[in-house]
Amino acid sequence: MTTESPFETRLHRCQDALSDDETLVLFPSPNLLYLTGFEEEPAERHLLAFVTPGDFAIVAPEMYADQIIEETYIERVDAWADGDDPMAVVEDVLSRLGVEGGRVLLDDRMFALFSLDLQAALPNAEFGLASAVLDDLRIRKDEGELDALREAGRISDEASEAIRAMGAEAVGMTEAELAAEIGAEMEARGGDGFSFDPIVGSGPKGAQPHYRHGDREIRAGEPVILDFGTRYDGYPGDQTRTVVFDGEPPEEFERIHAVVHDALDAAVEAVEPGVTAASVDEAARSVIEEAGYGEQFLHRTGHGLGLEVHEAPYIVEGNETVLEPGMVHSIEPGIYLDGRFGARIEDIVVVTEDGCERLNHSPRTWEPL
Amino acid sequence: MTTESPFETRLHRCQDALSDDETLVLFPSPNLLYLTGFEEEPAERHLLAFVTPGDFAIVAPEMYADQIIEETYIERVDAWADGDDPMAVVEDVLSRLGVEGGRVLLDDRMFALFSLDLQAALPNAEFGLASAVLDDLRIRKDEGELDALREAGRISDEASEAIRAMGAEAVGMTEAELAAEIGAEMEARGGDGFSFDPIVGSGPKGAQPHYRHGDREIRAGEPVILDFGTRYDGYPGDQTRTVVFDGEPPEEFERIHAVVHDALDAAVEAVEPGVTAASVDEAARSVIEEAGYGEQFLHRTGHGLGLEVHEAPYIVEGNETVLEPGMVHSIEPGIYLDGRFGARIEDIVVVTEDGCERLNHSPRTWEPL
Repeated sequence: MTTESPFETRLHRCQDALSDDETLVLFPSPNLLYLTGFEEEPAERHLLAFVTPGDFAIVAPEMYADQIIEETYIERVDAWADGDDPMAVVEDVLSRLGVEGGRVLLDDRMFALFSLDLQAALPNAEFGLASAVLDDLRIRKDEGELDALREAGRISDEASEAIRAMGAEAVGMTEAELAAEIGAEMEARGGDGFSFDPIVGSGPKGAQPHYRHGDREIRAGEPVILDFGTRYDGYPGDQTRTVVFDGEPPEEFERIHAVVHDALDAAVEAVEPGVTAASVDEAARSVIEEAGYGEQFLHRTGHGLGLEVHEAPYIVEGNETVLEPGMVHSIEPGIYLDGRFGARIEDIVVVTEDGCERLNHSPRTWEPL
Repeated sequence: MTTESPFETRLHRCQDALSDDETLVLFPSPNLLYLTGFEEEPAERHLLAFVTPGDFAIVAPEMYADQIIEETYIERVDAWADGDDPMAVVEDVLSRLGVEGGRVLLDDRMFALFSLDLQAALPNAEFGLASAVLDDLRIRKDEGELDALREAGRISDEASEAIRAMGAEAVGMTEAELAAEIGAEMEARGGDGFSFDPIVGSGPKGAQPHYRHGDREIRAGEPVILDFGTRYDGYPGDQTRTVVFDGEPPEEFERIHAVVHDALDAAVEAVEPGVTAASVDEAARSVIEEAGYGEQFLHRTGHGLGLEVHEAPYIVEGNETVLEPGMVHSIEPGIYLDGRFGARIEDIVVVTEDGCERLNHSPRTWEPL
């Protein structure tokens, strides 16, 4: 008796979810990793996997063929060599699988370089996105995925505490230097690199929600937004604390920090099976609006987290996705005072049978530890 | 008098290259960075730039707006907020620019998530790839780009020499540990991270051309393929040496290493303005074929190098691109003996007025330094 790998189980669940006339076409991406265990950077060579309700095929550059067979449950690769026409191989595969049209669901991250080729090869097909089928599978995490997410959260938390313990030592360092320290603290605790380019936004830079980090020196009495995470077993951490390393915070900072903290808690309180993603957004947003900062909360309340740092469910106005046990997402309200500073606090939560479990536990205060 | 930024100069050259009915649509990618200086990871939010012969517009999430205006020459952003319909903003922009159809050239790396939206918004357009216009600009590097590429090459070379000087010390380390050492050596010399996930392929792993690195321990007497680079000022290095850290190499290794070295030199010798990319591939390939290893040279001879580690011109059979001064590409012949070991040597070259300049100079031998 052979045991099916967890990846093969996912492939079969995906095939069960496809209609008779649907074909999924994947490309090196978290979707392909989720269904096959094969991880590779997207690049300029045709590497495409085809999933139909009853079949599977993968077209790949010859030099990847052995590796795919060695590292995954896949037993056959339709290979092409540099100098060959990869689309001739794709057309053979489509014909072998009997795909002539129907609904073709492209990997959401597939490059136009390949999607235009597929559209030319299948002029009678109607094209849509793979997420229409895969989001529904990927959105509920299994125990192995949850364990990895918990561990990524724990490592990110410990690194956050170590950084905050630097206190006055951090003053005078550049944001980039502090980012490097954060990376070293996570690696030392078993993290695998950054899960995304970390944010170290000091003073006015913290008022730009998607600023990363630069050569600006951190000053005493300045709020600094620290938003980062590491990966563990392929799954990411992502948490935010806003801190003042030394000295007194500027006027109004303590107030906005307290409002953001209340908004976070209100949203966490709102999470349970049966509520919509939009209602969790609303729980955080209403706290900030009532405090008079609605216009300064510039983004959605959160995003799902899994193989991708941003994935479904998005915690945003208009998203009527109903939360279910096993879904994982961030809650990260923020207030941004243009040209002055910002405050954001972020935890990851897992929806449970009767509420949610937070994956981040480091102090949510702004004072040094 | 205001001075135009180099990025704005590139935008104007790109606009000059467009036909009257052509519109370029870019997405966070090396193309967008090349034309605007704005760098951001591709993600799930609509961030699209539109270039017509006489106009430019960028649609972006609200939270990026200030940053784009601050960091680039762009003076206006058509912003949308979380909860808005980004495609409504895209449609307003298309109408303002007068784009109703014609030829729409999509960023080669644009996700299907966005290309399908654009195709639905412009049902009468004919879609193609942005590379059709941009490759011709990006393929010839300016002096600033060449300086950055030279420096990235120098740092990568120095790190290679430092690693090879480890000799017997490297035996017993895992490939992953050696990869981390390589990263540290490049950072210490001013490199900015890895330009791609490095290859440390020991023994039989070296026979898989696109293996990266793993937990396998390096053994004495085993050939190890070391293929890596760093970035300097945004531009990558990429070079390969195949080394034996300690002890005697296996039978046949010295022979294939010498053949690969000869193939490299033959291809470097072949590079000059006026010859085709395919002829450079042929120069390397014929040396390997004559030695009886044609079937074991599993990939093209090289790829262009610029903002992307792989870009035009590809040095491959069938590519009739004529080399011109300022083009930059790798030459990286290899021989792979399945299940045993491989040998590859790679230098980056710049096409000059009368031949080429190598950007890598570390010893091409296999012995420890």
